[in-house]
Amino acid sequence: MNKSEVDDVVSRVRTFIREQVIPVDDEYDGDIAAAGGDERRRELQAAARAAGVFAPHVPTGLGGLGMNMVDRAPVFEEAGYSLFGPVALNINAPDEGNMHLLDHIATAGQRERYLTPLASGEQRSGFAMTEPSPGAGSDPSALATTATRVDGGWLINGEKYFITGADGADFFIIMARTGEQATMFLAPADREGLTVGRHMRSLDTSMLGGHCEMTFTDCFIPDEDVLGEVGKGFAGAQIRLGPARMTHVMRWLGAARRAHEVAVTHVAGREAFGTRLADLGMMQQMIADNEIDIAATRALLMEACRVLDDGGRASKETSIAKTFAAEALHRIADRAVQMCGGLGTTHDLPVAKIAREIRPFRIYDGPSEVHRWSLAKRAVREITR
Amino acid sequence: MNKSEVDDVVSRVRTFIREQVIPVDDEYDGDIAAAGGDERRRELQAAARAAGVFAPHVPTGLGGLGMNMVDRAPVFEEAGYSLFGPVALNINAPDEGNMHLLDHIATAGQRERYLTPLASGEQRSGFAMTEPSPGAGSDPSALATTATRVDGGWLINGEKYFITGADGADFFIIMARTGEQATMFLAPADREGLTVGRHMRSLDTSMLGGHCEMTFTDCFIPDEDVLGEVGKGFAGAQIRLGPARMTHVMRWLGAARRAHEVAVTHVAGREAFGTRLADLGMMQQMIADNEIDIAATRALLMEACRVLDDGGRASKETSIAKTFAAEALHRIADRAVQMCGGLGTTHDLPVAKIAREIRPFRIYDGPSEVHRWSLAKRAVREITR
Amino acid sequence: MNKSEVDDVVSRVRTFIREQVIPVDDEYDGDIAAAGGDERRRELQAAARAAGVFAPHVPTGLGGLGMNMVDRAPVFEEAGYSLFGPVALNINAPDEGNMHLLDHIATAGQRERYLTPLASGEQRSGFAMTEPSPGAGSDPSALATTATRVDGGWLINGEKYFITGADGADFFIIMARTGEQATMFLAPADREGLTVGRHMRSLDTSMLGGHCEMTFTDCFIPDEDVLGEVGKGFAGAQIRLGPARMTHVMRWLGAARRAHEVAVTHVAGREAFGTRLADLGMMQQMIADNEIDIAATRALLMEACRVLDDGGRASKETSIAKTFAAEALHRIADRAVQMCGGLGTTHDLPVAKIAREIRPFRIYDGPSEVHRWSLAKRAVREITR
Amino acid sequence: MNKSEVDDVVSRVRTFIREQVIPVDDEYDGDIAAAGGDERRRELQAAARAAGVFAPHVPTGLGGLGMNMVDRAPVFEEAGYSLFGPVALNINAPDEGNMHLLDHIATAGQRERYLTPLASGEQRSGFAMTEPSPGAGSDPSALATTATRVDGGWLINGEKYFITGADGADFFIIMARTGEQATMFLAPADREGLTVGRHMRSLDTSMLGGHCEMTFTDCFIPDEDVLGEVGKGFAGAQIRLGPARMTHVMRWLGAARRAHEVAVTHVAGREAFGTRLADLGMMQQMIADNEIDIAATRALLMEACRVLDDGGRASKETSIAKTFAAEALHRIADRAVQMCGGLGTTHDLPVAKIAREIRPFRIYDGPSEVHRWSLAKRAVREITR
Repeated sequence: MNKSEVDDVVSRVRTFIREQVIPVDDEYDGDIAAAGGDERRRELQAAARAAGVFAPHVPTGLGGLGMNMVDRAPVFEEAGYSLFGPVALNINAPDEGNMHLLDHIATAGQRERYLTPLASGEQRSGFAMTEPSPGAGSDPSALATTATRVDGGWLINGEKYFITGADGADFFIIMARTGEQATMFLAPADREGLTVGRHMRSLDTSMLGGHCEMTFTDCFIPDEDVLGEVGKGFAGAQIRLGPARMTHVMRWLGAARRAHEVAVTHVAGREAFGTRLADLGMMQQMIADNEIDIAATRALLMEACRVLDDGGRASKETSIAKTFAAEALHRIADRAVQMCGGLGTTHDLPVAKIAREIRPFRIYDGPSEVHRWSLAKRAVREITR
Repeated sequence: MNKSEVDDVVSRVRTFIREQVIPVDDEYDGDIAAAGGDERRRELQAAARAAGVFAPHVPTGLGGLGMNMVDRAPVFEEAGYSLFGPVALNINAPDEGNMHLLDHIATAGQRERYLTPLASGEQRSGFAMTEPSPGAGSDPSALATTATRVDGGWLINGEKYFITGADGADFFIIMARTGEQATMFLAPADREGLTVGRHMRSLDTSMLGGHCEMTFTDCFIPDEDVLGEVGKGFAGAQIRLGPARMTHVMRWLGAARRAHEVAVTHVAGREAFGTRLADLGMMQQMIADNEIDIAATRALLMEACRVLDDGGRASKETSIAKTFAAEALHRIADRAVQMCGGLGTTHDLPVAKIAREIRPFRIYDGPSEVHRWSLAKRAVREITR
Repeated sequence: MNKSEVDDVVSRVRTFIREQVIPVDDEYDGDIAAAGGDERRRELQAAARAAGVFAPHVPTGLGGLGMNMVDRAPVFEEAGYSLFGPVALNINAPDEGNMHLLDHIATAGQRERYLTPLASGEQRSGFAMTEPSPGAGSDPSALATTATRVDGGWLINGEKYFITGADGADFFIIMARTGEQATMFLAPADREGLTVGRHMRSLDTSMLGGHCEMTFTDCFIPDEDVLGEVGKGFAGAQIRLGPARMTHVMRWLGAARRAHEVAVTHVAGREAFGTRLADLGMMQQMIADNEIDIAATRALLMEACRVLDDGGRASKETSIAKTFAAEALHRIADRAVQMCGGLGTTHDLPVAKIAREIRPFRIYDGPSEVHRWSLAKRAVREITR
Repeated sequence: MNKSEVDDVVSRVRTFIREQVIPVDDEYDGDIAAAGGDERRRELQAAARAAGVFAPHVPTGLGGLGMNMVDRAPVFEEAGYSLFGPVALNINAPDEGNMHLLDHIATAGQRERYLTPLASGEQRSGFAMTEPSPGAGSDPSALATTATRVDGGWLINGEKYFITGADGADFFIIMARTGEQATMFLAPADREGLTVGRHMRSLDTSMLGGHCEMTFTDCFIPDEDVLGEVGKGFAGAQIRLGPARMTHVMRWLGAARRAHEVAVTHVAGREAFGTRLADLGMMQQMIADNEIDIAATRALLMEACRVLDDGGRASKETSIAKTFAAEALHRIADRAVQMCGGLGTTHDLPVAKIAREIRPFRIYDGPSEVHRWSLAKRAVREITR
């Protein structure tokens, strides 16, 4: 897509979000369940379709705009400007990452059965990987859920939690141990032996379907629903990992930018001690720090996207961009709260909710500590070789 | 009170909080309204009375333990270990500060009518000072609510917001402009012309009665309900200000310490990558930083308390302690969330709620920026004279 | 230049710096005067010419490689790996920026007389703008040095300080007030009325010619030595400003990267408490933070360079990149000192000297505070329009 | 000593330092060797004696004022206001710590031979413990220097480095391995087999005698020069450790306070953009942050001193105070540099030299990382027991 085409999509998304999504988001303080859940989703997605901004990342063959990582970055950022924007455009987590993964390794049958309805917004999905301690959390090698070979397929047993979007999802990608290795499986939500449990009630409330516990009890998966190769589960998940980290950054960047703009507008319209708040040095410092954090996040994000578009795994670049962004974007939202004073802590302004939504990103998709550990090991290896 | 007497109170409060208050707090995720509001308060206060830990700060003549600032610091810290602890001990904001103020400047009649039932927990109160823009927020001199002289008293007109505890309060201390100066007034909640409006729905949910809007429309206050001298409202509020800042620090210090201890216990009981989390260097760094922040907060707090107990205004000391504490205690709670990983963001552990509750303290009682501004001006004055 | 040509220059510079420049730099702890000053410069420049890496930024017509901003970034970074590298390649401040400025606005005569010998390394130069208080420091509009119209030219009077490279410079570009505006002038160092005074003895010692005071006393400048248009001095300086900020970043990025690599190598080769230092979590955190800071600096730098190469003024982009870099690069060097322990504070390792050299960059080229002030004003303007 | 007596000493020290020590310190930019080394020391100590401020920490029986830790804190802080102040008062490291140690465990003969001339300023001393890798650095258990039993005494062999004050010291306390344990020994500097080697040339230049390498080659120590019990070397060093950490904090606190006061005075006397620098919000933020860091350092210091004076080891308290102080005091000095702009990086103002002197304190006396590691382990132990 050339630059002016991208600009055009960006501009249409911006208008759509401000006119049709923000009002809903603000009315419900970013709580998608309170706003109507899937019913609201279908409504917003219909509006997005009407505005010509639905599924910009989806391959054109499946009805999307086929934008690559570099092109979708500013589009996703505009979508993220509202907490409900990603759902409206069908670019929310984990669906967006699941579409990417399915598009790369699903069989023709799996594409038709799972990817097509996902890309069109007919269905929602989950990615069932994380497990309660001592299973697979930050350390995927601790994977405890098992898939045992049976006639014509596999029996899955185990527990998962923090499965984003699980409540109401139509199907799941499930990571399970097959001997020494891991394998990914596909299963519709109504498959026997698969149960979605309680919501984890995390700080964030804008993810449709919440973050839930799941239980697998002798859940049968036929061979045709093995996703990718048996034993190659982690390698398959890698396909999803780097881009999914970056689309997270894109969306949260939009949210943080909104917090910043709301705060700047606030301090530009208030006075204290005879001076406009926006002209006080300590406010200017917060404003400038936000500008710098936004620019640095965007620059690191684009760097990683260029490598991904060039076919690289971008493991280092996405790790750096994700770690920096998770911390910088929360700083931005936190400064926005501070700039707005008392009102910043309330529902009257959208800054506290954005700070609350972004906070878990320092933990989701690999805590900052795990990324730093991995970055350090790589640096020592490269510098001392 | 000698050290062993203080230690004894501390120890009884600790036991009481852990056995009788924490379970309620955790069941309702720190939401006092959800937990039953004033009904729950009366229940908890009865239990505190039975445990001999009720109202440690109240003068002995009014049924309290008469502890000074230095002695009450560790007691309030233990109470703050639960978000509902301060309500249980009747040392919550704004009641505790209002008792202090009334004890210093109320007339005999006012003491009987307002202080006595407040100290006993029969009544609750509000301190109606903060106003929506462009009124008195960070800058008290912008006070917009007026009190006009009429026969036998005053008519108050104006709007307030962020009035903590207003919903359900039995009476209010009201700051209003009388000519060029400000004056404080007392009024029962059912006084005509006084209306408690909507809750501001701030990040914190543990303050009984919330933070509300209030309207005064020709609200009549008889002369006997002028609190302190006419025109000396700000001087009177100063009596309340320093100690109230410090008791806030004491209570939040307890909450932050709980977050820290929960997080340390969490990482001491988990493994990843073959190592106990508590033995990983990055975890140790967070643990040590928490220990340092706790110790520094406590040291600055005690410094200020000593000056207050010696009769000083401690304007600089309380400003430094409040500013440092508001930032340090939130850092502690935020690190606790990070240390607990995904679970740290949920209701399963009490760390996210504590982070959420402490966040507004960087704004309440004077935003950090206003304190820094005042500290800087003082420093320039003192160093260059 | 295509990517493989750039890579080739980068690679040659890397080898040249490590083999021929670092040993000198380390022998003299980065003190260029102690290392022999201009004599040493000529020696190093001859070596650079022999290695085919001299003056990569100089237009090909003047004997350079003609690299644009994007291409020169990695080259300058490699040169900056040694504190003496920039001098060796003739890309040091202020000469490099002065070449850029002269190349854009010098007359044919000025090019021949000033630019040609500067580009070839025959001469050195100074940029005489900064003045002692209350003159032009952070605030250029306070310019106090005057140029008065006389027959056939101008008489300059005033005082300057922090004039980098002044001691031993062959000529100067001088900013002086002409009425309400400012004008730039050229003058050889031996011009009557122009005196280079004492060195300011700043923290850094690697800048050839130091940072000096200068006095102008009825210093006559003929009309032919007016640089650019009369009254357009600040506009002219802008041409130099953005790119000069970025080349500073490139060079210091190289120095900071060296500090990082030295520190990583150090901790990879030591043990304490039975563990390799490089495997301790707190060390890994510092290593990872350095990697992140390096990547973010580079990403912001490249962003600004792309805008400059496209002909933009990049005022916001260079301001952000400079401010972030000045702080990030010092953090990197400071962490490197910490990682190296006691030895890190000594001359045995090159980390303390790099920290010392980079520190002033938070002040030179506009203190961080002035950049933040300007970024904030721009943000308020753009967001609220 | 009562408060007014302490105040009196503080006041006399303040006057003495400003009138007689600061001028020398500033003339030589804090370089004690350049200022004349031991000759200068004797001159300054004579002046201190004349001013009645010599050796305030020394027991009265040895001619000092016998101040305890709490009382000496403000005195040492005033002395530290000049980098040469501690030498003038004979309270510099390592002498002051060595006096403390000798006063606690030296035999009568050792007191006469070593402590008396040390306390009077006749002699200087060193504490030879730290060793080059892989010996005893941060990890004392790696002690590599050995003491072998021979007839009538011990033979010491090994290498030390970073031995503060070694060049010109009259005697040394030496830590050496005796079997599985460590033992401390005393030796005059001219003992055969004891060699003081090169200076390590660290960032700081105000420590008389520098930081040197030392070699022990069959250096004989008679039994009477064993300090404390054989095999109890580390326990003995602990006596010195806690207080020595705190007196370091006291002295550096004085230096940091000077940097702060110089910077405040600077910004109070300058204008830019039409405003006094001291009235700009970003300057006020730095001023306030310095005030907070000074207050917090002092509060943590006093807390630890109280425990030490009460006879506690104060291991946790001194570790917290040292770690916080080393970081806070450098932040203060660094902000002071920034506040002074270009001049702050030069010898014209004393801020850059103070920043340079304080930097190594984050490493000396246990790097921050080691203190944090130890604090974290203690916290986990105490919280989970």
